[in-house]
Parts: sequence; structure tokens; C-alpha cells
Amino acid sequence: MIKVGIVGGTGYTGVELLRLLSQHPEVQLTAITSRKEAGMPVAEMFPSLRGRVDLCFSTPEDAKLTECDAVFFATPHGVAMAQAKELLAAGVKILDLAADFRLKDTAEFEKWYGMPHACPEILAEAVYGLAEINREAIKKARVIGLAGCYPTSVQLGFAPLISPKSTGGKKLIDLNSLISDSKSGVSGAGRKAEVGTLMAEASDNFKAYGVKGHRHHPEICQGLSAIAGGQSVGLTFVPHLTPMIRGIHSTLYARILPDGKDVDYQSLFEKFYAGEPFVDVMPAGSTPETRSVRGSNALRIAVHRPQGGDTLVILVVEDNLVKGASGQGVQCLNLMFGLPEKTGLSHIALLP
Amino acid sequence: MIKVGIVGGTGYTGVELLRLLSQHPEVQLTAITSRKEAGMPVAEMFPSLRGRVDLCFSTPEDAKLTECDAVFFATPHGVAMAQAKELLAAGVKILDLAADFRLKDTAEFEKWYGMPHACPEILAEAVYGLAEINREAIKKARVIGLAGCYPTSVQLGFAPLISPKSTGGKKLIDLNSLISDSKSGVSGAGRKAEVGTLMAEASDNFKAYGVKGHRHHPEICQGLSAIAGGQSVGLTFVPHLTPMIRGIHSTLYARILPDGKDVDYQSLFEKFYAGEPFVDVMPAGSTPETRSVRGSNALRIAVHRPQGGDTLVILVVEDNLVKGASGQGVQCLNLMFGLPEKTGLSHIALLP
Amino acid sequence: MIKVGIVGGTGYTGVELLRLLSQHPEVQLTAITSRKEAGMPVAEMFPSLRGRVDLCFSTPEDAKLTECDAVFFATPHGVAMAQAKELLAAGVKILDLAADFRLKDTAEFEKWYGMPHACPEILAEAVYGLAEINREAIKKARVIGLAGCYPTSVQLGFAPLISPKSTGGKKLIDLNSLISDSKSGVSGAGRKAEVGTLMAEASDNFKAYGVKGHRHHPEICQGLSAIAGGQSVGLTFVPHLTPMIRGIHSTLYARILPDGKDVDYQSLFEKFYAGEPFVDVMPAGSTPETRSVRGSNALRIAVHRPQGGDTLVILVVEDNLVKGASGQGVQCLNLMFGLPEKTGLSHIALLP
Amino acid sequence: MIKVGIVGGTGYTGVELLRLLSQHPEVQLTAITSRKEAGMPVAEMFPSLRGRVDLCFSTPEDAKLTECDAVFFATPHGVAMAQAKELLAAGVKILDLAADFRLKDTAEFEKWYGMPHACPEILAEAVYGLAEINREAIKKARVIGLAGCYPTSVQLGFAPLISPKSTGGKKLIDLNSLISDSKSGVSGAGRKAEVGTLMAEASDNFKAYGVKGHRHHPEICQGLSAIAGGQSVGLTFVPHLTPMIRGIHSTLYARILPDGKDVDYQSLFEKFYAGEPFVDVMPAGSTPETRSVRGSNALRIAVHRPQGGDTLVILVVEDNLVKGASGQGVQCLNLMFGLPEKTGLSHIALLP
Repeated sequence: MIKVGIVGGTGYTGVELLRLLSQHPEVQLTAITSRKEAGMPVAEMFPSLRGRVDLCFSTPEDAKLTECDAVFFATPHGVAMAQAKELLAAGVKILDLAADFRLKDTAEFEKWYGMPHACPEILAEAVYGLAEINREAIKKARVIGLAGCYPTSVQLGFAPLISPKSTGGKKLIDLNSLISDSKSGVSGAGRKAEVGTLMAEASDNFKAYGVKGHRHHPEICQGLSAIAGGQSVGLTFVPHLTPMIRGIHSTLYARILPDGKDVDYQSLFEKFYAGEPFVDVMPAGSTPETRSVRGSNALRIAVHRPQGGDTLVILVVEDNLVKGASGQGVQCLNLMFGLPEKTGLSHIALLP
Repeated sequence: MIKVGIVGGTGYTGVELLRLLSQHPEVQLTAITSRKEAGMPVAEMFPSLRGRVDLCFSTPEDAKLTECDAVFFATPHGVAMAQAKELLAAGVKILDLAADFRLKDTAEFEKWYGMPHACPEILAEAVYGLAEINREAIKKARVIGLAGCYPTSVQLGFAPLISPKSTGGKKLIDLNSLISDSKSGVSGAGRKAEVGTLMAEASDNFKAYGVKGHRHHPEICQGLSAIAGGQSVGLTFVPHLTPMIRGIHSTLYARILPDGKDVDYQSLFEKFYAGEPFVDVMPAGSTPETRSVRGSNALRIAVHRPQGGDTLVILVVEDNLVKGASGQGVQCLNLMFGLPEKTGLSHIALLP
Repeated sequence: MIKVGIVGGTGYTGVELLRLLSQHPEVQLTAITSRKEAGMPVAEMFPSLRGRVDLCFSTPEDAKLTECDAVFFATPHGVAMAQAKELLAAGVKILDLAADFRLKDTAEFEKWYGMPHACPEILAEAVYGLAEINREAIKKARVIGLAGCYPTSVQLGFAPLISPKSTGGKKLIDLNSLISDSKSGVSGAGRKAEVGTLMAEASDNFKAYGVKGHRHHPEICQGLSAIAGGQSVGLTFVPHLTPMIRGIHSTLYARILPDGKDVDYQSLFEKFYAGEPFVDVMPAGSTPETRSVRGSNALRIAVHRPQGGDTLVILVVEDNLVKGASGQGVQCLNLMFGLPEKTGLSHIALLP
Repeated sequence: MIKVGIVGGTGYTGVELLRLLSQHPEVQLTAITSRKEAGMPVAEMFPSLRGRVDLCFSTPEDAKLTECDAVFFATPHGVAMAQAKELLAAGVKILDLAADFRLKDTAEFEKWYGMPHACPEILAEAVYGLAEINREAIKKARVIGLAGCYPTSVQLGFAPLISPKSTGGKKLIDLNSLISDSKSGVSGAGRKAEVGTLMAEASDNFKAYGVKGHRHHPEICQGLSAIAGGQSVGLTFVPHLTPMIRGIHSTLYARILPDGKDVDYQSLFEKFYAGEPFVDVMPAGSTPETRSVRGSNALRIAVHRPQGGDTLVILVVEDNLVKGASGQGVQCLNLMFGLPEKTGLSHIALLP
């Protein structure tokens, strides 16, 4: 059994880790920390766990995290990087659900997250946690900066169009005018008391936000550029707050270049994701629904070329808390410890 | 492996059976019928099942149901009773999610369901599928009439107050003035195209219905009377349509009689349900939430006596499609085939 | 034109007052205060008011409230009573949407609101703002303690059964075992940043709260007792949080006494509310929907006697922010200033 | 008073017309037809109208529509064109909320709506009902084909960028690569009993639809081309079903051409819509919310140029049933009868 600790379990990614890990056959949950709620049974905060998870929140001191095999950080930005060094020294593997180990450029990190990076040397070795792209590196990693929720959907949606493995190096689409019109359920904003995500504000309502600039923009560009073999990428990214609890739907737009005029995009996507346990390329003409992945680690994609024109439309859905966060974390954990990638991730989406 | 067929899989209890049974370690799904959709992959209608259930809907003829060990009916009322005789003759066990085998009085059945009963002799041997009450009989049954969604919540909420096992024969509450104010999510109305349950009608809205009389009223009264050792029962039952997908919340009211003045109701409930795998008596003062059981077979109860007065308030939550339907069915299936009762029912509720 | 000021306009009752009063033909809005947001245009906080309300929030000092004809308090409990004396001295009429002038018993006020009452002498003269019950007193009042949202629905639902005007002094129902099972949309919790009313927590979910005791319980009992001519009243009140924005649905239960066996309750209700501009007694057999009053000052009632038995069921719907708060305030304002009661309150509910 | 009849009042645009017209100071509602529901009071179908609209549905024969001054068609496609000739002959003005008089090319009409056009000569004189674009023509029109819900948002969003009045004939953006990523609430699908818009299917869910082709695509292209002075237009249009009742949010993307590099787009939009009674160009940096126009005829726009790059992002919100349908109809009616354009359209949006 892999001994796993969770730092910061009072948010939505925390409770989702508890749901997934408490049913994982190879994991033993040893501690979950919350300085503020230390002593409270987690099942008191999250009644869905009554009878299923007996842990109480503990202080970081009591949690003895250095005795774990792996530690998840389900914390605000900045926490993981402050504790990474000590844990690594103790031989503990780290999976961070926040952004501390995502952006390779520390200046970019500081610009978007408002703090200097505490451990650039660990950042340098950290692997970006998106298994479909970085599987082999993840297997060997000590530190994972898990891909963000929006970035997962956007990168996996564009990857078959830009990865040299897929394109053979041809320029199928214009890398400088990519568009991602993304819609997220409100759980993406976390379990923080804020007026903007009150039900009386956010339900029966729809709006864009972060149009000027969103923290996931540099992360997506970094990732797409890496997938594209280092080419620079120009992306317009517009996130929207959607009146539902879970789910991300990214509608991606790409302009086809001359080399891409005669490509069979359905085949291209199917080949690229052949054998992937969690990516489902849907039949031509499909329109995936967010509820089809609610509670599951699946990500579904459909590719369209309306009227056979020059604009490709890629539709991507995922559960922001599973494939966009905690499920992705468990998927990486499985890889890091040599387990079959699907272990503990067999949940079928809840529909209706 | 138990070979299981499903008759009528295009509704919500059908897809929920598929979710539960396809992950059940001792079950082999052999057929799912829909005359109308014969030939269509179930995963085309329910994309949550893509990659997880490979069955296509088949005609009843092609389904070879007589070769099954057990058959679920997830059909409109009247279908199961028409096919029961042939299946029983072939040694197949029957679990009906509709009402064909719930009401023991055929006149009552005809009054509420508008058709004569096709097989009173099978009805006579059928066992009411509510495991917490009828566990031993279910183990030996050939035909189960599974308890309805509302009735499950109301009966399990009142049972500790009226069962002689619990009360020692004392009259703790007035059996003639019971009240159940019940609220159900819209999936309870099924997957039928109707104006009243369109999202534009039912969301951001709340209303009662069926106040004059609801089909579940005689079922609840029959069940409560049986639990109470045959005493007659007077119940006011008011169901309400609630703007959520899943979940039932029944708020029960009972008048305490002199013999019930000094009872410790928290203990009474805890004792009655001690050891039950799916009934969770919450700590004193709790207010259970429907989301705490979303997708799980748990049913949670809290008992209150406001201001120490003469009115007991019992709060009960369940997922109408799981403990109120398909999960209850799997629970009974496990009992009928000698499996541990929790087999295949370990899902933790999806929260948020 | 009546010069009206609003103290505390950043909550939902505040923006609702702005919606109603800015379209009121006899009202001139002169000031709206918020110390915290002073200087901000109200239309910046509430974009629905762009182009319709040009006011900025002002400090209480700048608002010159003593020059108003009337002042609404849309504030937390305790604010109105601190400022009432000065305003009354300046001849300003006061309408308080909070609880400062509801409970006549200062000990009860202190028990439920956790502070001593600042001006018992003003409380003594204050009139309870429920026009259908206190119309004449409201016309002459200087200070109105507007009825709470739940209490409005419960009192108007029970009134025809207990008011001597209606019953001729007969005891139709048992006053000691009244039950109100009430359901409120989330806007009832106000525009405060709290985890419990986040959309990710409160949507697709249903739960009771405040079962042990709720501040509206003593208010309702006081009101019912007054309506019943001073008889004491025993009420079980269970409020529930419902996943919708606006609306209250109270399901009321009463036990019929011998004198009530032969009463035509439909007629009783219709007579009691004949001529009332905002109370709609629906035809026999109706089940009112909360959306039928969304945004309007109407309150709809239906009375049922299931199976002709001994339990009456009364269904009441209102918009908690209109008839349950701000609309009720405008209705009282009209009465206080001799205007037709419906002035500025002609909005038709928004459906769908 | 203008005598107005409504053909087909049982859908959402019908009830919305009733809400608006019954409060319109210059309109007398004379008839509302529904062959199926003839004789039923409209307030029985739509309880929001109880006490406010006394009409019953009548047969077309009883409705005496030829005695009206104007008739609205809130019907399926094909109805208005069948009755137009007779009404025009009687001097009745026609406003069609369906698509019979939108597409000028009868072949396109037949392609998308599956029926030949019944009266091409009337189609030829019909005016497209989008007041901000066609105000003068509407004033003189006998027949209005009211703009569709999506098309209203998309055309008004792009208009300032492409109208020669605004651009002085310069090519600011690439007309051949326009993108509209549009999101609509479920009321856009109408009040038809369909599985796809059941609350259990559509709530807590998000999906695209009609990606291959949508009836509004040719309408939008025709309109944009007309606004652009006859230039052809290439548009990718992806509509999405959004889990809310009302509201459309169109997120528009346009590529800036060299002539558009140095334009102040905020000013461009503000100038173009200066004086418009219902179009609100929001301050720079704004993100409009659909709820800010819920129930009102306002349409709000914000224009963004993320990171000063080459892609413009225009955000547009409207209430699909008001500015996208019935409110637009009333706005045109006012123009046709020489009334101030805002008459009867002063509703403030319902927030929250």
C-alpha cells in the first residue's frame, strides 16, 4: 500500500481526492491536514464521507507527512513550494494541485501569482502533470505540477493538431490565432466564501470573466508550445462562469492552413488518442455533454469542420474536479508508483 | 457470475441499473431490452457509458431473458406482471422497479394504476423489496416488488417509532395523524417528454402536486401498517417537485403520545438501525442534505424534537434513483443470491 | 412626490427596493447609504440598474436622511433601532425590513437577536407591517416593523382559519399543533459571502435547517396569536433551503376540530381575502408554483383537505424578496402616505 | 388604443407578449388564439397572469383578427405566411416571431425550414425586425419578420465593426473569419415536450449543438452582409445549450486587419450606439451578465482586445425572450404606430 497524505483538505479538490483515494485499492490515506479545522472529522465537513472516511483533519505537525510515500497539495498557491524541499529530502513524492510547479518561467509565476518562487531548483525538475502528454516523464518524477483544469481541456483538444508526432511536422493550423472559448462550472472557483459564486448570484446567469488575462493563459501557451515542439503559440482565451456545479466545456477554434486542407481530422484525433485510457474521441458529428463525465476521469472530444470550411471547431468536456484536478492527480500517482494507470479511477459518470 | 437481464432500459432507473450492475463484481449483464431502440448501443443514448457498457438494446425476443438468473423490470407499470409467469417458470428471479408487485390488494392496484392485476397468485407470493424491513423474506423470494422512492424514505423514517421490535409494543406516537412532507428531484418523474418537467418550467420553481391523492400513498400506508404489526395508519402525504435532478427529502411529523413522552429518540433510532449497511442515523441536531447521498445507496436520517414539545420531526434523505430504486434493486439482488449485501454498492456520494 | 431614503442598499432587499421604488410614480429616491461602498454608483454593483438608477451609495452623513419623508432600513438587525429616534424626531417615517420592530417582547428580541433592544418605547408604538392584517394601523403608523418572509406566508396561510372575523369565534382547528413546513430560495439568506449558500453547495441539493429554533418562530407565533384574538398558539416550524433563487413555499398543516368538520374551506378563504389586491385564493385543487409570483407582490394560496380527512393542507407561495420583504414595504409605504395600495406594484411575475 | 391580436399564445414568446402587452399603455389585447386550447383562460395555463389577463384562448375563427390593428404570430414556422395575405388585405399589420419573413432568399428558406415559401411577394416587402439597424424601414412596414434570438445578439455585436456608417468604409476586421460562440438558456428551445430539455437532462450540464449548421446561420450572415453594405461574410457559429432559463450570451471573435490596428474600439461602439434606448455599451473592461437583462429589453455589450492583440472579443447579452423575441416585437410595434420606442418596455431586469 502506498501511504498518501493530503495537505489542505477542506476545498473541493480535497474532498474529491478523499472520494477517489479512499476507494483506491493500493492507497492508504494516512493524514489530511487543515490547521484551521484540526481535530474535526472530515466526514463532519463532508457528510458524503460518513461511514467511509474516518480521518480527522490534523495539524501539519501531527500529520507526519515525511513518513508518507506521496503527498498531495490541495492548497492555495504558494504552500507546496514552501514544503517541497523537506518532503523531497525525506523521499516523499509530491503532487501539487495548485500552480506552484506549473510555470517553468519564475518571472511569469511571479507576475501571475504575485509572489516570488521559493524553490526554482525544484521547479526545474518538476514534471507537468498531464499524463497523455508527459507519461514517461511522470513515471520518473519526484514532483508533479498537475495541469490546471482549463489547461487540460485546451491542451488535449489542440494536441493532435500541433504535435509533430501527429502532424509529421506539417503546419495544419495557424498556431498564432488559436481561440479557446471555455466554460466552467462554479466548483472551479473553489469552496471559498465569495459573493460572486453565491447561488443567488451565479445560478440562472452566464458571464465571461478574466478576459484581460487569466492565470491559465500562460500555462496553456507554455503547454501548447511544448506539444508543438517549441513553436510559439498565440491564443485568445475567454473563460466563462457557467451555472452548473461541475464540468468544463472548451470550444476551440483553429484556422486551417494550406497543409491542413485535405486532412481527415476525425482519423487524426482517433489515431493520436488510440489506447488512451481516459480520452474518448467521439464519433464524427458528436457534441459531448459535460454530464457525460460528471464524477469520472474521462475527457471526451469531438472535432468538427463546419461546412467544410477553414475553421476547425473542437469540443472538449471534462469534470474539472476529476480529470481537471484530483483524478488527474491519482492518474499521475498511479504512473509514479508503477500501477496500472486506471487503478482506482473506474467511476462511471453520474447521469442524470 | 449471476446472469442479469434488464427489461426497459431507456429510462433513468434503467441507466442507473447499468451504472451499478456494469461495475458489480458478481454480475454479468446479458441483455437490455427496448423494442423501440432495438439495435442502438446503450452508450449512444447514455454517453456516460461509452467505453464501459458495450451492450445494444435488443428486442424482448432476442434478449433470451429465460436464460437469465434474474431479470429487472425498469418499465412502466403493467409490463412485469405480463411476463412474470413465463420467467418464473424458467426459474428466473424477478425484481420489478415499477408497482406491479407492491400493493397486495388488487382492488387498490386497479384503482391507482387503472388496470386489473394480471397475476394475483404471483402477487401473493411477491415480497416487498425494502431490505431493512424484509431482509429474510427477500433472501428466499422469487419475485420482488421493489419499494417506491417516496415510500422508502417515509417507511424507514417512521419505522423505529412504530415497529414493535423497537417500541416493545408501546404506542409512542399517534398512528392516525402521521404527516410526510416529501420533496423530490425531477428525475423522479422519469425520462418522459413532458412540459411540466422541462427545465424552463421546473427549475427555479417549487410546487406541491398530487395533494388529493398519490399512488405512493396506499403503498406507504400498507408498509407502515405492516411494520406496525398490522395496526391501521392515517397519513397525510404531500409530495413536492424540487428544482434539482436527484434526491428525496422527506420531512416527517408525528405526534407524541403519553407513552412516548420520555423516550430518548436518538437512541431509539440508533438502536433500530445498528448494523444496517445503508442507513445512517446522524448525530443529534443534524440536518441531512440530499447531496450527501447523491449517487450512493445510503439513506440518512436525523430525528428532532423541537423545543422538547409533542411533535417529532424526522428528516430523511436518499437518492431517489439509488436507494429509492436501482440501488435498492441491487441490494435485494445481493440478498437473493447470497452475496454480501453491499456488493457493488460502495459508491461514495458525489459532493459537490 | 414622497422623498424616500434607503439605509443599507447593498443586499438583495436593497436592490429590490431600488427596482420597485425607481419605477414608483409617486416616489423620489433621494439617497441610498452604504458606508463601505460610499461613492460607488449603485448600477456598478447591480448592473440591472444601469441607465435606470443614477444614485451613488453615500455615507449616512451625506445622505441627509432627516430630510426624507420616509426611510427604509435594508440593514442587519440592530441598525434601525439605533437611528429611529432621531429620524422620528425629524418627522421621518420608518420602515424596517430587519427584525428591530417585529417582536413586541424585548426579552424575546434579546434572546433571538443577541442584543438588548435600544428603544423599547418606539418598539411599543411600532406597527407590524403585514397589510392584510394591520391595514388601518399601518395607515396611521410612524414606524413599521415589516413582517419577515416566512412569517408573511405562514400567517396569511393560517389567518382565515383562526381569525374571529372569519370563524365567528368557532374553533375550527387545533391551535396547539400547527405545522409549517416552509421552503425558501437561497436569496433569503442574503447577499453575504458564506460557504453554505455557494452555488456549488446549495444547488442540486435540499436540506432543512434551524429545526431546533429559528428567529421567525416567535414572530410567527406572536402574529398568529394576535390574529386569533389573543389565544396562544403551538407551532412546529421547519424551514428548508431550496435550490432556487427566489420564492417561498409554505406547506401548512392543521388538525380540524369538531367545529371545523363541516366547513367549506374554499369559501372561507375566498371570503376572507375578497378584495385583497395581492392575495390570490386559487381555485379548489390548485397547487401554486413559486414562479407564478417571481418578481411580483402577489401571494397565492390553495387550501386542500386530502380525502376529506381531519388534516387541512394549505399551500402558500410568495416571492420572498417582494411580498416577503421589499414589495411589502412599498405596500405599507403606499398605505402610510394615502396612496392606492397597488401604486408601483403592478409587476407581472416573470414566467418562465 | 392599438388593437392587437396574438396568434399562438401557448409558447414562451406568447406568454411573454402577454406580460408585455397587458401592461402596455397604448395597447388593447383583443384576442389570443390556440385551436387546441380554445376556451381555456390564459391565466390557467400561465398562473403568473392570474388577475392580470382575463382573455381565454380562442379559435382563429372567433378571434376576428382582421379587426385588429396589428397581429403577432408566436407560432411555429409556416403559420404566418399562410395568413399574411388575408390580414394585409384587411389593413392589419403583421409581426412574425417565427422565421417566415426573415430570409429573403426563398431557396434558403426552403432549405432550412423544409417547406416552400407561401408568399414570396409579401416576403419581398417584409422588413427585418431589428430596430437598431432598420428603424426607418420598420416605421413604414406592413410586415415585420422579427430578428431571431441569436441573430439579434450577433448582429448588434458586430455591427459597429462592419457598418460603413461606423467604419467610414475602412476594413477594420476580417469579414471572412468571424466567430460567434453563443450560449442560450433553455427557454430558447420553446415550450415543447422534448427529452433533451427536461430538467433532468439539461440542468447541471453544458453542450454545443447544431455545429454542422443551424437555421440562424443564414439569417445572421444575411443580416451582417446587409449591415456591411453588401459585402459577403464568413461566419463560424456554434450555439450551446446553457443550464439557465433565460438569456443569451454571445462571445464574438474578430480578427483585426491593418486598418483596424489603431482604432479605439470602446469609442467606436459608444458612438455607434449613442442614443439607442435599449443598447448599453458597458465601460471598458466589463463582462456583462445575462441576469442583468433578465426580463428587460436591454442588450448589453462589452468590447475587449486582450493583450492588445489582433483578436477582438465582443461580449453581448440579452434576454432571448425579450430583446431576442417579444420585447423586440413590441419595440417594432411602437415604431410602426408612431409611439415612443420605449413605450411599455420600461421593465428593470430581475436581479437576483
